[in-house]
Amino acid sequence: MTKSSKTEDARALLASNLQRLRLELGHSQEHLAELAGFHRTYVSQVERRVANVTIDNIQRLAAVLEVPVAALFTAEKSG
Amino acid sequence: MTKSSKTEDARALLASNLQRLRLELGHSQEHLAELAGFHRTYVSQVERRVANVTIDNIQRLAAVLEVPVAALFTAEKSG
Repeated sequence: MTKSSKTEDARALLASNLQRLRLELGHSQEHLAELAGFHRTYVSQVERRVANVTIDNIQRLAAVLEVPVAALFTAEKSG
Repeated sequence: MTKSSKTEDARALLASNLQRLRLELGHSQEHLAELAGFHRTYVSQVERRVANVTIDNIQRLAAVLEVPVAALFTAEKSG
């Protein structure tokens, strides 16, 4: 019951980190999708939390964002 | 190109952390699957890296293991 795993929302964490890292790189949703070899609407679906993304696609997103997979599920520090 | 994201293997990280955390809790693969509401062979499939697990199921695994999702993708420190 520790570490708030019961209330953690994996889709929300992924969406938030994906959007933040994508904007840091200056990519549109469509361009990032193209870089990762996805359909052009797929990044939008992930950021809107409507896609039940697979681990293989999570890995592809991490690769194009140049971060470890764990970074996509880390809650951003406040301040 | 930093942080070795190109060579990171998300299925391998998940499999390794899942097995380690499961054994720390003293659960069989079948029992953990039952706790998470999966088919009894599903945890075995994830630990053998044959399943392309979805983010929703990753969250369920993290919940029964009582860890944050990020902990399932963190490489174990050596030593």
